[in-house]
Amino acid sequence: MVLRLSKLFLRTLREDPADAEVASHRLLVRAGYIRRAAPGIYTWLPLGLSVLRKVETVIREEMAAIGAQEVHFPALLPKEPYEVTNRWTEYGDGIFRLKDRKGNDYLLAPTHEEMFTLLVKDLYSSYKDLPLSIYQIQNKYRDEARPRAGLLRGREFIMKDSYSFDVDDAGLDASYAAHRGAYLKIFERLGLEVIPVAATAGAMGGSKSEEFLHPTEIGEDTFVRSAGGYAANVEAVTTVAPADIDFSNAPAAEVRDTPDTPTIETLVDAANILVPRTESDGGAWTAADTLKNVVLAVTLPTGERQIVVIGVPGDRGVDLKRVEANIGSFLPIAGEITLEAANEEDLKKQPLIVKGYLGPGLSLDAPLLGTEGAAKLLYLVDPRVVSGSAWVTGANEAGKHVFGLVAGRDFGWDGVIECTEVRAGDEAPDGSGPLETARGIEMGHIFQLGRKYAEALELKVLDQNGKQVVVTMGSYGVGVTRAVAALAESNHDDKGLVWPRAVAPADVHVVAVGRGEEIFAAAEKLAFELEAAGLDVIYDDRPKVSPGVKFGDAELVGVPTILAVGRGLVDGVVEIKDRRSGNAENIAVEKAVDYVVDAVRSN
Amino acid sequence: MVLRLSKLFLRTLREDPADAEVASHRLLVRAGYIRRAAPGIYTWLPLGLSVLRKVETVIREEMAAIGAQEVHFPALLPKEPYEVTNRWTEYGDGIFRLKDRKGNDYLLAPTHEEMFTLLVKDLYSSYKDLPLSIYQIQNKYRDEARPRAGLLRGREFIMKDSYSFDVDDAGLDASYAAHRGAYLKIFERLGLEVIPVAATAGAMGGSKSEEFLHPTEIGEDTFVRSAGGYAANVEAVTTVAPADIDFSNAPAAEVRDTPDTPTIETLVDAANILVPRTESDGGAWTAADTLKNVVLAVTLPTGERQIVVIGVPGDRGVDLKRVEANIGSFLPIAGEITLEAANEEDLKKQPLIVKGYLGPGLSLDAPLLGTEGAAKLLYLVDPRVVSGSAWVTGANEAGKHVFGLVAGRDFGWDGVIECTEVRAGDEAPDGSGPLETARGIEMGHIFQLGRKYAEALELKVLDQNGKQVVVTMGSYGVGVTRAVAALAESNHDDKGLVWPRAVAPADVHVVAVGRGEEIFAAAEKLAFELEAAGLDVIYDDRPKVSPGVKFGDAELVGVPTILAVGRGLVDGVVEIKDRRSGNAENIAVEKAVDYVVDAVRSN
Repeated sequence: MVLRLSKLFLRTLREDPADAEVASHRLLVRAGYIRRAAPGIYTWLPLGLSVLRKVETVIREEMAAIGAQEVHFPALLPKEPYEVTNRWTEYGDGIFRLKDRKGNDYLLAPTHEEMFTLLVKDLYSSYKDLPLSIYQIQNKYRDEARPRAGLLRGREFIMKDSYSFDVDDAGLDASYAAHRGAYLKIFERLGLEVIPVAATAGAMGGSKSEEFLHPTEIGEDTFVRSAGGYAANVEAVTTVAPADIDFSNAPAAEVRDTPDTPTIETLVDAANILVPRTESDGGAWTAADTLKNVVLAVTLPTGERQIVVIGVPGDRGVDLKRVEANIGSFLPIAGEITLEAANEEDLKKQPLIVKGYLGPGLSLDAPLLGTEGAAKLLYLVDPRVVSGSAWVTGANEAGKHVFGLVAGRDFGWDGVIECTEVRAGDEAPDGSGPLETARGIEMGHIFQLGRKYAEALELKVLDQNGKQVVVTMGSYGVGVTRAVAALAESNHDDKGLVWPRAVAPADVHVVAVGRGEEIFAAAEKLAFELEAAGLDVIYDDRPKVSPGVKFGDAELVGVPTILAVGRGLVDGVVEIKDRRSGNAENIAVEKAVDYVVDAVRSN
Repeated sequence: MVLRLSKLFLRTLREDPADAEVASHRLLVRAGYIRRAAPGIYTWLPLGLSVLRKVETVIREEMAAIGAQEVHFPALLPKEPYEVTNRWTEYGDGIFRLKDRKGNDYLLAPTHEEMFTLLVKDLYSSYKDLPLSIYQIQNKYRDEARPRAGLLRGREFIMKDSYSFDVDDAGLDASYAAHRGAYLKIFERLGLEVIPVAATAGAMGGSKSEEFLHPTEIGEDTFVRSAGGYAANVEAVTTVAPADIDFSNAPAAEVRDTPDTPTIETLVDAANILVPRTESDGGAWTAADTLKNVVLAVTLPTGERQIVVIGVPGDRGVDLKRVEANIGSFLPIAGEITLEAANEEDLKKQPLIVKGYLGPGLSLDAPLLGTEGAAKLLYLVDPRVVSGSAWVTGANEAGKHVFGLVAGRDFGWDGVIECTEVRAGDEAPDGSGPLETARGIEMGHIFQLGRKYAEALELKVLDQNGKQVVVTMGSYGVGVTRAVAALAESNHDDKGLVWPRAVAPADVHVVAVGRGEEIFAAAEKLAFELEAAGLDVIYDDRPKVSPGVKFGDAELVGVPTILAVGRGLVDGVVEIKDRRSGNAENIAVEKAVDYVVDAVRSN
């Protein structure tokens, strides 16, 4: 294929688009790969479509290699299957809903768990039919509150989503492992660095789950890793908690006047004056000795607002994303929630909460917090609040705190939740050393869904003993359009895009530089010889365009090899430049095709 | 590629699906190519997807051959561009509309004229950039009132839509001709008979237009053709009207009592008794001598109901589809309308209409019908109502008709409209002989859109003289999913599907018949040898499935060549059967691969 720039539907832009925050967005627009159609919704131009198709092909090949078969579901789906699993409600504002002319409810599918499950139920009925892995590459829709960063978080985007169906847990483990391996190969072939990190299952349900994060400063996901090989999404990190403490000899709790100590800092200062501790007692009071009770407001999928209190050591902040990821099992209804600090309005409705002096209560017999407490509020604590640990915390009266309040003796809680900020230096839960934090983009996500959807939609097969058993499922996604953006993000310099060969829109960009007819004739001859050698060629045959503009466009467009035919032609040479390294060499015209073919093959 | 039936995600059904009216729908479901997800919305299974992709590939190759470049627009689009062209209103109930979480209006695009126009406006600015043809293969959405016949009229379906952009009419003619040629090649390669017929432009606007109809009894479109090569959609046929008649010597019109003659039949009988005509006067009165005035109700895109009267010779019925296709220019607003006979309610609001005795009025000075008439009703007439023609028609008084009412002398009209039923035997407008009628499915449609969209959205370029000129556009569509259905419809027998080679999901279907291990070993060896020879193979390796079921499935699935390995193996032969002809031959095992490869190549 020879794409002539005189004909190619392409215009490069000198100016960055006003709405582009990140390099990939800026460059994909400027280099003529995509155009914005609406917030988070993009049109693909010929070069963009070419890159997209190459990414899709790599994915299809690796899916076929593990025996996964391609199907294709509609994007416009009826409400009913999503009602059975309750996701019609759970998705809240996150999906696009519509009605047809008869008033029936439809949605633009954000994911297709229900449809895959029902399709297998429709076709299969025996353990002999399993294992099965099927997938699709398809448009997905999510009504993001804040579409951003071009293709990185869009509202119409392409995903590859697979599902595995197995008769037992061992089968699911094997299907999961096969997909995990395929994903590592896909990202390796694409030239996209990814780190598989332990993840929470989130709204999907299910148990084991890993994300494939592409490390980049602009990533929305924070993750942690240890030198010893541990990696996890921040939401999924588990805290290394101390062991329970024997409290049989612990002194009784004591309420003290601590006037004007509404913050942890003022409280610590006051404690060190009022009740100074010696080295043998544990040294001066620090924030880690206090129990901070943070009041949060959760908006449930039903729209209802519920107040929740989280108890954490005073030296740790609450990480709302971690709370959001882990609070689901404590709430009355599953689904998408929003979470924020309680506001004045919320607090007005809680007369028992004394701001700055909130605590769980002074004894197990008369708790304030907890669903059984006087305030009837859900009370969850950090894993560090172990049985027997003693705390300085609010006495629920202005200017008063209680000292030596012992967990499990003086106060209880409704549950333990991973909720505090993870810090660089925290220990990895597997003992593999201290954690460091990094940012990444989620490129893929694999889940062991288990039997949640099969149970709800009654997908059962006959097992070897002729008994009906519920099928166990895995769910595996790759962001296809997002992969294009991530590749652009991690493969560019100040001049433009620098595509890895596997996805470049062409193998070589031939530039005719100058005005002489013989230059254009030689460049065109080379372009077609390169095509005959099996390469995809962009040929800049534009007359009356300056060398500066032509080279600028070649560097912006980012094809890996640039072959310039210009003044050197009189000496029988052309210039061949590697876009990534910038290294250029003069090569004899008659050796140019072989040289380029070698460069393409060696990658 | 070898697809093993023991693994392939496929279940054939013995029973026809209850909702399937046509063979393609029935067989595509039974043979495991598609599954219904909602009314008019389908899921593609692996074999179906394979056929679909082959159709798409043929289309892409022929688009590339005429220099058309592929792009890809979103399916979810903002309202604004469709408001500029007024199509947001014009589409009425025919599109899916929705709101995002911020309350902004969106639609699922039924076609993309606006987006293509705006994209070219965004990128191009000079006549030097043109001509340009760009296309996409993409999901389209229409909220059909009656989705039917499986893939033939769906609500989510795939279309290839191209647009051409030219600086002048000659350019548009060339782009149109190139697409016309490409379409003929596409359908020829697919093995799908099509007849290009003259068409009306319908809601799209524009001038020259042809449909590519696939002739079939189950088609929704009626078209006509002559032995001399004329072909047109019924909506687009033009009537061969007589020449105007000199009325200077015509006798004056005369009102007569014609009691109890509310129908054309009773009127003709009465006329022959009251005013008998001799052979020299033109012979006995017939229905063709009467002017029938039919009262219709048009529901405009705004929802408003407008009454229209159509005057036609009494021997012709009114064809509502022809009226609908041609009435647009007479209505106050463009867009989708519905049309029906006026009901009692409508007529009650028209006290001047005397049912059974309606006429245009007795003189030009005091018309009843016509926007200037007493009833203020739009009055359109058939082309046969030429100036000077004399008619028997209602005198707008019960029991009275007027005889010898002369068109152009005694009554006028607001316009001439193609509106009457076209009959087999009518003359073709180009003089190529009498018409015959046939039914077909619209497989493709090409339009000269002209400047309608470019004007509305201000797509202009600088011409050679540096002057801004409005670009002229063509629009060209192919129904991709519909092509799969039409191919199935026209390529099946009572046993199942019979795919043309170009789109078959595999080249050969290898069946291991019997129980012996050596049979399975030989069949598998042949399957992989055929794959090595470059063929796509389905291999029925299912153990413990009877020969009857295996052959039944092979015939239902419809791969062109079936190779059976069975009892003949002891004599060193296999059976190779041509699915279409049913001819089977015993071929020596060692010659089987060559034999099949020859069969594939010879097509």
